[in-house]
Formats: sequence, C-alpha cells, structure tokens
Amino acid sequence: VAGSVLGDLRRALPGITVAAPQAHHLHDVGSELRGIRGSSSAVILPRDAEQVQEAVACCYARDLPIVSRGGGSGLAGGAVPEGGAVVLDLSGLDRFRSFEPEQLRMHVEAGVRTSEVQRRARENGLLFPPDPGAAEQSTIGGNVATNAGGPHAFRYGSTGAWVNEIEAVIANGERIVVGGPSRKWVEGLDLKSLLVGSEGVLGVITAIRLRLAPAPEAAFPVVAVFASEQEGCAAVQGLVASGIACSVLDFADADAFGPLRDSLGAESVPAGFLLLMEVDGSASEASLLRQELLESVAATAVWTFAPLDQGGIRSLWRWRDEMSMRLASIYGGKVSEDIVVPVERLGEAIAGVRQIGRRLGLQTACWGHAGDGNLHAALFAADADADQLALARSGGGEVLAMSRDLGAGLSGEHGIGLFKREAMESTTPPPLAALLHGVRAAFDPKGLFNPGKVLP
Amino acid sequence: VAGSVLGDLRRALPGITVAAPQAHHLHDVGSELRGIRGSSSAVILPRDAEQVQEAVACCYARDLPIVSRGGGSGLAGGAVPEGGAVVLDLSGLDRFRSFEPEQLRMHVEAGVRTSEVQRRARENGLLFPPDPGAAEQSTIGGNVATNAGGPHAFRYGSTGAWVNEIEAVIANGERIVVGGPSRKWVEGLDLKSLLVGSEGVLGVITAIRLRLAPAPEAAFPVVAVFASEQEGCAAVQGLVASGIACSVLDFADADAFGPLRDSLGAESVPAGFLLLMEVDGSASEASLLRQELLESVAATAVWTFAPLDQGGIRSLWRWRDEMSMRLASIYGGKVSEDIVVPVERLGEAIAGVRQIGRRLGLQTACWGHAGDGNLHAALFAADADADQLALARSGGGEVLAMSRDLGAGLSGEHGIGLFKREAMESTTPPPLAALLHGVRAAFDPKGLFNPGKVLP
Repeated sequence: VAGSVLGDLRRALPGITVAAPQAHHLHDVGSELRGIRGSSSAVILPRDAEQVQEAVACCYARDLPIVSRGGGSGLAGGAVPEGGAVVLDLSGLDRFRSFEPEQLRMHVEAGVRTSEVQRRARENGLLFPPDPGAAEQSTIGGNVATNAGGPHAFRYGSTGAWVNEIEAVIANGERIVVGGPSRKWVEGLDLKSLLVGSEGVLGVITAIRLRLAPAPEAAFPVVAVFASEQEGCAAVQGLVASGIACSVLDFADADAFGPLRDSLGAESVPAGFLLLMEVDGSASEASLLRQELLESVAATAVWTFAPLDQGGIRSLWRWRDEMSMRLASIYGGKVSEDIVVPVERLGEAIAGVRQIGRRLGLQTACWGHAGDGNLHAALFAADADADQLALARSGGGEVLAMSRDLGAGLSGEHGIGLFKREAMESTTPPPLAALLHGVRAAFDPKGLFNPGKVLP
Repeated sequence: VAGSVLGDLRRALPGITVAAPQAHHLHDVGSELRGIRGSSSAVILPRDAEQVQEAVACCYARDLPIVSRGGGSGLAGGAVPEGGAVVLDLSGLDRFRSFEPEQLRMHVEAGVRTSEVQRRARENGLLFPPDPGAAEQSTIGGNVATNAGGPHAFRYGSTGAWVNEIEAVIANGERIVVGGPSRKWVEGLDLKSLLVGSEGVLGVITAIRLRLAPAPEAAFPVVAVFASEQEGCAAVQGLVASGIACSVLDFADADAFGPLRDSLGAESVPAGFLLLMEVDGSASEASLLRQELLESVAATAVWTFAPLDQGGIRSLWRWRDEMSMRLASIYGGKVSEDIVVPVERLGEAIAGVRQIGRRLGLQTACWGHAGDGNLHAALFAADADADQLALARSGGGEVLAMSRDLGAGLSGEHGIGLFKREAMESTTPPPLAALLHGVRAAFDPKGLFNPGKVLP
C-alpha cells in the first residue's frame, strides 16, 4: 500500500518533490529518546505555500492523513507519523518574505530555522525573544505550532506572543490568513491564537508575520546555588514577589545540577538547587538589577556566579542549553514531561517526581523555568533498553497525573503530541473534549491533519 | 410575546432575578453615540456561575437568544440586544474568588469592575496594565470578551495578554475551564485565547484568572506637539525604531488636539499633531528614558510638556481619558472606527479619514495608539440628527473600506460587535467566513449567543 501511495502522489503532484520516507522522517527528538518510531508511506517536499495547497488538496481528496514536519526537534512526538501517514516536510519553505527592521517585524515562511530568525534580528539590533532549546534544528513554523517557550519566556512570553499574523492551509487546500499588521487585532474570533500551539491538527502553517523587540543594551546572568531545595524554592517565590524584573528565572535540582557542576567551574560547590537568572535593559539598569539580584540571594545562597564578560556569559548559556542532552547521555534514555504548576508548588512537584522515580527504581532530574512553574521532569532509563524505557514512560504518566492533582497543566511548552494524549484523554472533562473535537472539525472535517495526536 | 418570555423565564428560574429590561439594557456607549437602540424581552441577573449555567440552560432549551452584558461601555454595539433577545446582566458576578499578591495573580468573576481590579493591584504594589478608556464603567469580563486595550497596550499588550485561565458557560449551560495556573500552557487547542475577544458569540465568560505585574517604581509622561502631521508621524516611526522602551505612544491629530488645548495649558501652542508618550521603570531608569524621549523629539517638536509631579501627571492622564467624550460634546454625535494600520501608514490613514469627512461635509478627528497603528477615527454629526448620523455611519463604512485598502484591520480594541459586521461581511474571504461559523457552531450549535453580531 505504501508503494502505491508514493506512486499515486508522484503522478498526482508532478511539480512537487515526493519521496520515500527516510529514517529521520519517522522520528522527533522526543520519540528517539523514548525509543519510538512511526511509519509513513511518502514524504512531500513543497517549496512554497502554493505547493502546500496542492499537496493538501491532493491528500485530502484521497483521505490520506498528513503530518507536518518542521525541524523534528519536538519532544512530544507531535511530528511522528503513524499508520503510514504522509509527511509534509516544510523545510523547503525557507524564505524571508520581508524583513523591515525599522518597523520591528519580519514575514517568514514556516521552514525558516529559528536560529536564523534570531540571527537576522540580532544583526539588526533587534531581539526575537523566544529561545526554545533547539533553535538550530527547529523551524519557526514548528515553534509557532507548539507555542515553544524557553528561558526568556518568563519575561517575554512564548512564541505566540510574537506572532502578528499566520498564513495556513486547511482542509481541501484552502489558504487562510489570520491576524493583522499589528499585535492589536480583534476581528471576529482569534483564529491566529488558536493556530498557535495547535500542533498540526488544524492545518499547515505556511508563513508567519513576527513582531520583534529592540535588543536590550545589556543582559547579565546570575547563578545562585542553594544547599536545600526548600531554600531554592523560597528564593524563587521571593524573586517572583520582589518585583525585580528578571528576564529568566530557571532552575535545576540537585539531580540535574550535580553531574554538570564540573563544566560550570563549580566542582567544589555542593550539589544543591541551582537558579539561573538574567536581567536586561540599558547597561546601567542591567548592572543595577544584577546587583539587586545578587543581594537578594546573598543571605541563603551557598554559591553565586555572575559573569560580566561576553565569553563567560556565552559559556554559561551553552552549559544551560546542553543540560537536557548531557543529562540524557549521563543517565540514559529520557522520558521528559513538561508540566506547569502554580509557582508556589514547585517544590512539591519536584519532590513528587523524585518519589515516583524512587518507587520505580529510576533516576530522575528536574529543571526548567521556575518563574513560570514550568518543570521539565525527566525519568531516565539507565540501560535505554525497552523494559526500562517502558517503566520510564509509565513513570511519565504518573508525573502527569500528579500534575493534575497539583492543579496544574500537562504541558507548558512541549505540547501534547503523541505522548501526552492518554493523559489528555483521562483528564479532560467530556464537554471540553467534545468542544476540542468540534473546533478541530471546523478546520478539518475529515480529521486528516495529524490524526491520533493532541486531542483527547 | 415579550411579556410571555418574561413570565416564562420567571417561572423557570425561581431562584434567579428576572426583570423587564430597563433603557440602559438596550444600549452600549457606542450605540448611544450613534443613536441606535436594541430590544429585549427580559433581563436575567445571575449572582454566580451556577446561576449563569441555569439561565443559559433554560434559554438554550427555549431557543432564546442570549446577549451577555458587562458595564455597557462597548463602542461596537456588541452588547446591544436585538429582536427581543434575553440580556444576561453579569454585574452580580462581582466577587474576587482569590487574590494572591505575592504570586502576582487574581481570580475574579466577570462582573468585577476593571477599575476595581486595577485598584486592588495598585494597593498591593502591583500593576494590571490594560487600561481601556472606561475602567470605572467596564467590567473585567467585558474587557476579556473584547480583548480591550488602551494606551499601555503598546508595551504591555491588551487584556488577553494578562489572562491565564477563563471559566465560561457554553451551549446547554455546560461550564468549561480553559487555560492554566501559569501563562505558559500548551494543551490541546488554545480555547482560552479563542474566548478572548470573542464578544459573546461563543458563550458567557464567568470568571478569569489574571496575571499581574510588579508596579514600576516610576512612570513619566512626555507630551510633544509637532507643527505638521508629517513631522509627527515621522517621530512615531523614529520612536518605534529607536529602541526607547515607551510604555505608551499615543497620538492626537490637530482636529482632536486643537479644541482641547486650553485644558492642557497649551492654549498658545499651534494646533498641531500631538504625541503622548510614557516611560516607566525604576525611578532612575524612568528619568533617563524621559530625558532620552525629550531629546529625541527636541529637534522637531514645537512644544513639549513632561510633568514630574503626581498632580500634573494625573491631570494629563485625565485630559487623555476624557478626550473621546469631550470631542463628542464639542463636535456632536460620534461614529468612531477603531482601525489598525501598519505603523508606517498612520499618516496616510489619518489623511484618508479627513478626506472622507470633507467629502461628506463632516468634521473628523483621529487619535489613539500610534505605536500600535491603532487609530480611533471619528466622524461627527454636528446636529446629532438622524440624517447627519446616517451620513457619519456611512462615512464610518468608508473608513473601514479604506483600512482594508491599507492592508489593515477593522478593529484593534473595540471589536466588531454590531456596527462593523457589514464590513466583516464584505471583506472576509469565504473560506475564512465558513471557518469562523464552523468554530462558533462547535461552541454554540444553535447560534443563540449574541446572534447577528461579530461574524460575517
């Protein structure tokens, strides 16, 4: 059947590249870590929005499920095709339609790398604040489709906060444009915000108008390590309440910080609870805020580290960026959940994750975005063998259930994708589940966009 | 028929106040200015979300249209009942479910006055940044339902940017809760953001979890008047590109500023193009930014005014807040559109509005949120008689059509309501119109929530 789909699509779409799937089309980063792979009958590689329309119209007429794919850096399995679905690889949509630095805006196609968006902004004295972990690999379309966050979302909001307009292809290959020239836009129903974070179940995002910010003159990080989790979590709460405008308020528990101390030049520091903060603004304001931060943690921190030189700052951020992957390489295959708890329950959530790990005999570690209550809770399968991974996956399910008990959410920035769908299923009240399906059906009556994902 | 609806609802809802409509239930501020009134058969006054559920279930079973009402300060006719619809007056939902200043959050019922939200925040060293014009009259539920903006939206975003969670009652009286404890939330489809700005056509918003910000230590306004519109619009563009972090970048053209000069102590200043800016932050940072602002406009402004004393600052903001109503009382009945243009086309849009007014023989004035390209374009009916108002309404239609020609939107913060529905109708592409109706039908299959509004 797969062969016949491939041949059929090639005949039906003569101007568009249609190929047999390669291994990487069956994965995202999350599914690789969990040892899961999908199956696909064909990959379509459109070059522009018109070709996306043609491809979607063609698949829609044939009742073929469509899974959009950006950089494949997702952690929730959202881009993993199942049951032979057609993969729509959007990497060919890689053009800047326009870039007007003096208007602080950019119109980009979905396949543009996020790092490229960031780089172009930076080179023009501007800032695209969202900074999800895999900026080099991920695409802006994927970031919009998952409402990707990152450390700076604490101050600047997630990707969606920087999206003014979205162009998308929906059922039957119809193209819609939603949103407007400015951030302010109240016109009917906010389908733009609905597409943000919709993980491919409503249609295919093909282009985005982004808003940019003036780059702050200076940004200074401050690291503080606390002997105990209690003291660390109290510091988080104190900082939230203090009014010190941190742009970043990240954390790593002892299980995450401990094994990575060496590379931070902190080998003799106790393996305690780490906070990584950042302040920005004019050089003078950022210096003042940095000093305030250092003073506010001075009484309880056992170690602080606040580099002022660009080299030191870059090294620190590289250390933070690599945290997730380095922990996986130290501890083994990783099942990482991405829960969001009320900020005052951060300590409880971390303790809960550790307890679940102990009961299952699995190493755990927690890190993430303390200020947003957004916790990356990882359970590691030491041998990365199937049994251990299955155990870790079941532990992940327990973490999600615990999150609900804490009045919390299943995902802050990774999305539901494939891996959290069961948790959505078991925790979404029936009227809400019906509503979600109803809204989806308005966009996609046949349910062909990313079927089996996201919705309960 | 109206009498029988009233009697029937009274019998069916014994525990809830059901009353005959009073004059104010048939209006919002916008409809009064346009000389339009609605008709309603009954007003239901629930006291809590459970009573809203009962009321909606009852109306839904009887196929009775439901128009939710907050403070009635809307400018687009969104709360005007038509054809005898039942008015659901939410002013009884006026409780703070919780207020946790140290967590920077608040859980409020929909009928709480916006000014009360702002006041409670302020008294606790916090800031609820959205500041739509009628904070004393409007309710937070109405602000969420229209995604209300205001001057500070330039830096801080509109109301929706401060909403973490929404509780709403939908078809058949079902209650849903969407969103989460933190701003970060990617869980299925973002129905929270879809309810923001939905103007009552999806259901009834009953409660909102709001996010708050630490109050900045200082906020300083700067007024600059330019002899020509060209110079003023160039200054707007320069400021957007400059990276000076204004929290407000408002404008008033000569027709708006001219007649209000006296009350600003600017009687001898030319009736030029006015910018009202604000900077905030720590006292030292705000002072520096204020100085930068003054320097940046020094070369072209003919007059600047930058009070530092609290009395002077308050007077200036009162002057700004009253601008709209005072212009209406000077010039006559007002038809005000609320278009959003790309910021570099602000001058073109203002000139276009003036031209439309001249052709129709009507006084016009433009003011609003220059930094967001959000223009309040008013056409005045000198005698407020029916013919003049009809002429002004037709001019309003021309303004909306012009806005589309400028690649712009129909509304930045007032919404579509009743008055812009025709413009939605004539300018929304059919696939998008079908989609909007499909999404609405998922929430409200019978189309009973605010029928005849908002959607094309």
